Amino acid sequence: MHKKLFIPGPVDVSEDVLLKMATPQIGHRTKDASALQRSISDKMRKVMYTENEILLSTSSGSGLMEGAIRSCTRKKAAVFSVGAFGNRWYEMAVANNVPADIFKSELGQPTTPEMVEKALSTGEYDLITITHNETSTGIMNPVEAIAEVVSKYPDVIFCLDTVSSMGGTKIDVDKLGVDICITSTQKCLGLPAGLSICSFSNKAIEAAKEVPHRGLYFDLLALYECIQKKDYQYPSTPSLAHMFALDYQLDKILEEGLENRFARHLEMAKVVRAWANKHFEMLAEEQYASNTLTTVKNTKGISVADLNKELGKRGYMISNGYGTLKEKTFRIAHMADTKMEDLQVLLKEIEDILGL
Amino acid sequence: MHKKLFIPGPVDVSEDVLLKMATPQIGHRTKDASALQRSISDKMRKVMYTENEILLSTSSGSGLMEGAIRSCTRKKAAVFSVGAFGNRWYEMAVANNVPADIFKSELGQPTTPEMVEKALSTGEYDLITITHNETSTGIMNPVEAIAEVVSKYPDVIFCLDTVSSMGGTKIDVDKLGVDICITSTQKCLGLPAGLSICSFSNKAIEAAKEVPHRGLYFDLLALYECIQKKDYQYPSTPSLAHMFALDYQLDKILEEGLENRFARHLEMAKVVRAWANKHFEMLAEEQYASNTLTTVKNTKGISVADLNKELGKRGYMISNGYGTLKEKTFRIAHMADTKMEDLQVLLKEIEDILGL
Repeated sequence: MHKKLFIPGPVDVSEDVLLKMATPQIGHRTKDASALQRSISDKMRKVMYTENEILLSTSSGSGLMEGAIRSCTRKKAAVFSVGAFGNRWYEMAVANNVPADIFKSELGQPTTPEMVEKALSTGEYDLITITHNETSTGIMNPVEAIAEVVSKYPDVIFCLDTVSSMGGTKIDVDKLGVDICITSTQKCLGLPAGLSICSFSNKAIEAAKEVPHRGLYFDLLALYECIQKKDYQYPSTPSLAHMFALDYQLDKILEEGLENRFARHLEMAKVVRAWANKHFEMLAEEQYASNTLTTVKNTKGISVADLNKELGKRGYMISNGYGTLKEKTFRIAHMADTKMEDLQVLLKEIEDILGL
Repeated sequence: MHKKLFIPGPVDVSEDVLLKMATPQIGHRTKDASALQRSISDKMRKVMYTENEILLSTSSGSGLMEGAIRSCTRKKAAVFSVGAFGNRWYEMAVANNVPADIFKSELGQPTTPEMVEKALSTGEYDLITITHNETSTGIMNPVEAIAEVVSKYPDVIFCLDTVSSMGGTKIDVDKLGVDICITSTQKCLGLPAGLSICSFSNKAIEAAKEVPHRGLYFDLLALYECIQKKDYQYPSTPSLAHMFALDYQLDKILEEGLENRFARHLEMAKVVRAWANKHFEMLAEEQYASNTLTTVKNTKGISVADLNKELGKRGYMISNGYGTLKEKTFRIAHMADTKMEDLQVLLKEIEDILGL
């Protein structure tokens, strides 16, 4: 039995989108491949609210995160972490011998504009990484306020991880001044895992030109130059299956309407937050709570593993807490093409199992 | 109209295999994901004739090639090139600041055991890369003779690019002593593009431990350690669609029988070689000719672009020459699940178009 997924990725994918994954392969050095990949870039620019170039990578979002910090850090990177995925960005810097400092918030707390100001005012850093939406804690960082601080430092490359939020809430890349905005397919975009996407500003392009060893597969500048030269064809064979599905799903997303889609995500978030506050507590403060998933504090001391096992029998799946938060929290994702009625059934099932 | 692909990847994929790409997504941190990925590794060990661990990467073959040379070169790499894909391996070393020398053969000529002996006997190198099958020239290198030379140097890590040959011809990884054997899905394995696979020997594991900055996404040691610790689950979200399809297709490959599959590839190669020798010439000498694709010298001065355009109208596609060999050669792939009868129809169509 397939379980309905309420985990923060991979998400359930509509059947028509899934079937696009089964499109027969085409040559990746053909006009058809160029047209397909150009079409995706044009539509992704709308979803991201940007006029910057879009880069596609056959990899998970981690691949482009590594590419961003490695390709564009000239002096030193300031990595702001609110959990597991911020920490991973720092590990990437270390693994690539990229100078970096990490600034961690307490678990469940956001990155504040003050923290960013304090770090950038030292003049030590020329790249910062921010996690927009942290799936371990369910925090959505105050990106507008952070962006305002970053805008005062024109030499700093602004990298934003929107892996678990892009397509589920408005992220106005150009207005925020984000240079590299990274996402991937298996979260709010509602596609199978396996492809990641980023925007790439002119400022980031110029920064990368000053970095000597950027690797090859995740060298964002090499990707950019290749698609300019080869009409949106990439250096190596991409996952054409994902390209077909993404192009199709982006039409569906734009047809739903971006504002409608964001409103639907927020409505679902509000329902889960109210439910969490009624029966448990939320890990995140209300003002920093994510619109795409909710991390619930296990204040009743239930066995999350047992709950999920029982939910599984009924055809549903949620997530246990991440890392050290295992059993101390559980997570309910409300992203992509999830419907309110399904979400409400899930919450009823949990109540039924726990006798709430 | 879908064109039947006779290009050296992506290849045509059977409809039942394509449909497996549309399997509903599952959590990548579940027992089902572990079982799926363990099953693939077990079957790939058979296809590769190895007892070494198998690593899966959501990327093109280039990703794992870069990972191999970066993760395991301690002193210096000797890169042997017989065309475009050997050259790319050298570019990867340079882009990662990995010390390397490149040893190029003349276009259409193989890497010889003598060349390898000469380089390794200097004692300068602790890793070598060999292209087994070069899709630009249609060369298949004499890997048994090369392996015999390499075996005399126990400190040298032997990396073999079998992207366009694994699953189409026998490559006995353990007998050859290959430490890192790399392939990807969109060639002889008969799957959509987007996933790559390598074997990883104990010797390679020990070598990687001595290399300080291996990056993260393509750090082969990190992948290896993660799947040991997490029961075949990977550090970041993999392309589950490819996993479902690969697991299924490997059953079909093993059902056909590896020896039968290799014989079928060889039979098709013989037909194309005879045809090429009758009407044109082959670029490769017969003894080094690839079993999975044939590069034909354009001795008649035809327009390859026009030929392919006309073939396109009839529902077929071959490849023009690669890079500087464009129009000077053309390429016919005979790999994966291509049937002899389809290949023969293609050759008849070419004869008909060219009035041969």
